[in-house]
Amino acid sequence: MTLLGPNQYGKAETRLVRVARDGAVHHIEDLTVSVALSGEMAEVHLSGSNAAVLPTDTMKNTVYAFAREHGVGAPEAFGARLARHFVTSQPTIHRARVRLAVHAWDRIATPGDDAHSFVRAGRETRTAQVTFERVAGDSWEILSGLTGLTVLNSTGSEFRGYLEDGWTTLPETDDRILATDVTAVWRHEDGEPADEVGEWDASYLAARTHLLEAFAGTYSRSLQQTLYAMGSRVVDQLPGVEEIRLSLPNKHHFLVDLAPFGLANEPGDGAVYQAADRPYGLIEATVLRDGSDARIPADLTGGGLR
Amino acid sequence: MTLLGPNQYGKAETRLVRVARDGAVHHIEDLTVSVALSGEMAEVHLSGSNAAVLPTDTMKNTVYAFAREHGVGAPEAFGARLARHFVTSQPTIHRARVRLAVHAWDRIATPGDDAHSFVRAGRETRTAQVTFERVAGDSWEILSGLTGLTVLNSTGSEFRGYLEDGWTTLPETDDRILATDVTAVWRHEDGEPADEVGEWDASYLAARTHLLEAFAGTYSRSLQQTLYAMGSRVVDQLPGVEEIRLSLPNKHHFLVDLAPFGLANEPGDGAVYQAADRPYGLIEATVLRDGSDARIPADLTGGGLR
Amino acid sequence: MTLLGPNQYGKAETRLVRVARDGAVHHIEDLTVSVALSGEMAEVHLSGSNAAVLPTDTMKNTVYAFAREHGVGAPEAFGARLARHFVTSQPTIHRARVRLAVHAWDRIATPGDDAHSFVRAGRETRTAQVTFERVAGDSWEILSGLTGLTVLNSTGSEFRGYLEDGWTTLPETDDRILATDVTAVWRHEDGEPADEVGEWDASYLAARTHLLEAFAGTYSRSLQQTLYAMGSRVVDQLPGVEEIRLSLPNKHHFLVDLAPFGLANEPGDGAVYQAADRPYGLIEATVLRDGSDARIPADLTGGGLR
Amino acid sequence: MTLLGPNQYGKAETRLVRVARDGAVHHIEDLTVSVALSGEMAEVHLSGSNAAVLPTDTMKNTVYAFAREHGVGAPEAFGARLARHFVTSQPTIHRARVRLAVHAWDRIATPGDDAHSFVRAGRETRTAQVTFERVAGDSWEILSGLTGLTVLNSTGSEFRGYLEDGWTTLPETDDRILATDVTAVWRHEDGEPADEVGEWDASYLAARTHLLEAFAGTYSRSLQQTLYAMGSRVVDQLPGVEEIRLSLPNKHHFLVDLAPFGLANEPGDGAVYQAADRPYGLIEATVLRDGSDARIPADLTGGGLR
Repeated sequence: MTLLGPNQYGKAETRLVRVARDGAVHHIEDLTVSVALSGEMAEVHLSGSNAAVLPTDTMKNTVYAFAREHGVGAPEAFGARLARHFVTSQPTIHRARVRLAVHAWDRIATPGDDAHSFVRAGRETRTAQVTFERVAGDSWEILSGLTGLTVLNSTGSEFRGYLEDGWTTLPETDDRILATDVTAVWRHEDGEPADEVGEWDASYLAARTHLLEAFAGTYSRSLQQTLYAMGSRVVDQLPGVEEIRLSLPNKHHFLVDLAPFGLANEPGDGAVYQAADRPYGLIEATVLRDGSDARIPADLTGGGLR
Repeated sequence: MTLLGPNQYGKAETRLVRVARDGAVHHIEDLTVSVALSGEMAEVHLSGSNAAVLPTDTMKNTVYAFAREHGVGAPEAFGARLARHFVTSQPTIHRARVRLAVHAWDRIATPGDDAHSFVRAGRETRTAQVTFERVAGDSWEILSGLTGLTVLNSTGSEFRGYLEDGWTTLPETDDRILATDVTAVWRHEDGEPADEVGEWDASYLAARTHLLEAFAGTYSRSLQQTLYAMGSRVVDQLPGVEEIRLSLPNKHHFLVDLAPFGLANEPGDGAVYQAADRPYGLIEATVLRDGSDARIPADLTGGGLR
Repeated sequence: MTLLGPNQYGKAETRLVRVARDGAVHHIEDLTVSVALSGEMAEVHLSGSNAAVLPTDTMKNTVYAFAREHGVGAPEAFGARLARHFVTSQPTIHRARVRLAVHAWDRIATPGDDAHSFVRAGRETRTAQVTFERVAGDSWEILSGLTGLTVLNSTGSEFRGYLEDGWTTLPETDDRILATDVTAVWRHEDGEPADEVGEWDASYLAARTHLLEAFAGTYSRSLQQTLYAMGSRVVDQLPGVEEIRLSLPNKHHFLVDLAPFGLANEPGDGAVYQAADRPYGLIEATVLRDGSDARIPADLTGGGLR
Repeated sequence: MTLLGPNQYGKAETRLVRVARDGAVHHIEDLTVSVALSGEMAEVHLSGSNAAVLPTDTMKNTVYAFAREHGVGAPEAFGARLARHFVTSQPTIHRARVRLAVHAWDRIATPGDDAHSFVRAGRETRTAQVTFERVAGDSWEILSGLTGLTVLNSTGSEFRGYLEDGWTTLPETDDRILATDVTAVWRHEDGEPADEVGEWDASYLAARTHLLEAFAGTYSRSLQQTLYAMGSRVVDQLPGVEEIRLSLPNKHHFLVDLAPFGLANEPGDGAVYQAADRPYGLIEATVLRDGSDARIPADLTGGGLR
């Protein structure tokens, strides 16, 4: 005897590009949008009846049509418009979750008045997730984040004073490279997101800058300490951020042993490192504003087996 | 004012190959192992003190040393040995989660007695996750699974009778290709896993076969229906499986419109399809044994934004 | 002052699935097809005139329409039909090169008469490349191959007696793991390929088997020796194969040093290895039938920088 | 009867990071280096004798030791030092080819005097390939390049006046998005590269800027025309560049059909596009300085089958 547990369905990774034209000056928006809905979905699982199911193809159409009709703007606001739409227009849909990845472009400088040429910017991707649920009253959850922000301190990092057991061979170090790919997701206070692009963009850029500055400015005794410094900086500096979750791989850089060739290779000018692929450390933690709950889902910042 | 929320740290993706030799007949075990620990980790985040921290390098060493000393065997049992070790040997570690991916090899047939040649088998990866927690008494959670099992029905699938709104253009179909990449994770009843390789291997193969047979044998009115048929088959047929979670992308295959060239192209002999990359449908659900809870974490079967 | 050098253009990675139905028994063909054309293309580069240019969209349509109208069959023959078509139907096109990757499926066993369920098979991909050129008379070049065939010998491999210089620290070994991902491309004698699926399939399976058997059956003093044994086996055993090019990464497996834990870990029963990602060795060579030329392009078996 | 054809072997993808310290101001160099050697390699293929073989492990050691002892600097010069070393120090090695990928980092701005924090920059990778051959006299081939430079024009691109046959359905357009990922490799005049980092860096930046400006500044009637404009700009502006090869995927952006929803969606303000993955156009060509030969190998700018 079996029962249906938690479930959702939707259209993943709709690729949307929108071009606004202000005379010869163009503006580009480039997003990947994934919609997931849940609600009265027992029958479709048990008997295959689709009477409560809005096709995923319709979700894709809606993403494009809404972008055309209402524009895109901040991913948090665009996600909210879509989430509200699906839940309020279909009685069988009780919850909509919209995930968005924003792909950034810089302008290519050109001599004349034309401004319609772009080059993909940076390596990180800005992300957002908006969840709207209509159960007993409306409920909003707004997450912002980034992934793929690769950073490195070439000194100012040590690792000492740790536990040792019979399988510990690692020597202590007071000068190492600390490198990671930052994935961060932060949660805003409850309520439907405002539709002001400028504020969301400013908030995102501030968070990104705080993450970078805290990474660079923290003398690190452990990557956990650096993580906490990064997370608490964002919560402290951004009013309305309730919590932040960070997933930081420790991308090891090993000093190469060059003694067999009569070459010293200690931390210092000209030191040479091997950048390793696998295994890597992986540090994950949530930093909370005092009084807030930890609600950011783990699958947003990592997961899976390969 | 900030607080530390949920956190864990560990060594991810240690690549382990072990060769057993029975005379000229060799046996190969090939796994990727990820360890994540949690416990008394406030200080390392707040002050950087590593006094409670076992280095991730030690975790890697332990994986290799345990494989050498005690062998590997079933991933569920190997993970359990590692998880129990970390928690019971270090008072500061309260919880250990070990994720394992098993890479399968077939033998290459050779004429003589030697049997030490192998070719990577199949496309799917067998997975396991073992979590051991020592809080009030011991607590075990044992998950088995697979990922990357790509399947396709060339007929026996329809999609009709769905909701339509102003953004619905999809025509109904009573004959379509249904294709997906199966990611499945199932949870066993509580308790430390037994150390009998044969039983775990048999259980895994049975689950894989049930998933394939349910996929093939279900006339599908929706991918949700197929998912539920796959999941309930596993729960019904495998005693001790409490729940299963499936994540099934709907890999769309579109009939190519060849009418401009005077060619019919309807479902039937010789029909030609375009296999699409993105967007894709994504169907996720848990199927529970009556009386069980849904505990499989969502980050095991998918997640992230790109 | 600049001139146009070698050039080609086309549609890459058209994803084609074709289903044949013999009553309830279905057969599936799944290919990725890339077409590249060249010819009288000076003007399109210099002035942008497209008068000699067949759109790449048309190439995609043609791939689908030909599959519908004439079927697919052997990739060598399907590629030849397409290549001949583009060159003979457009005077401005002098040369067509069609690359094909074949994705293999196995049947899922089912109880009744229905046979329309499939599971993706193996890890390797069968490949083909057909080039037709019409300059002074017709010219055909037919290549077959495979990529992604991962193999491993757990013994029967040594590495000794090599050059040593001031930067050599590698110890000799007489018992190591030898593992590689085989990419192979072999060239058939000139002439348009016959349209007999069975012969091409048999030829492909024979080549695959010879590669596996030569890998397994060669006591290896170097991966180069193994490569040559694999290549010469194919040329010797398959009449009409003029040359074969192999690209073999040496996927290193290092014995883990467990001495700090009082554990021996030498080649032998129960030895434990770390499977390394990067760097890796890379061995590339062509094996020729006596009297043949080396013509297989290097970009088919590898290349690029990342 | 078989013979050995063209062959090479080496160590691929050695990951090298070097940190220079000028007091508290650090500088980081981050490269992936692949070495491939050829020479008197008949015996190692035929009998497995390694007497002429320098181990690939030694190549890795040499890369690290040379970086420590002599620094890195321009990839062209570092590759030349390595290539010269292998060929001149081992009589059995007649040719060395070194491929290098440079991973760029920007500084993270920090308040104090410390400057040891970095963030990965841009999305493109700078590349170089140096080949030194000692046969009848010395021979150098120096290539520079980049890959992964993604650019987009949101207008200023048309596609009209092309050939039409019975499989052509594409409508003409006079306003489309033109987007591509630039892979470019250019060849410098013969001779050993000078060891002046500044000149190589300036040359690289100039080439990158010319590619961007030519892409942005060319009204495009075809991607071939844009390619030629980009290539000829580099050859015209950079003395000493003999040829350049470009591989430009045409990353299609399709106007979404929103007519079923009563929405116009023509090129103009607010137009919405679907960014497609596959298939894609692929335009490849070499642009030569008058009097130069086309020598850039095709495997540097693309290739393979999947």
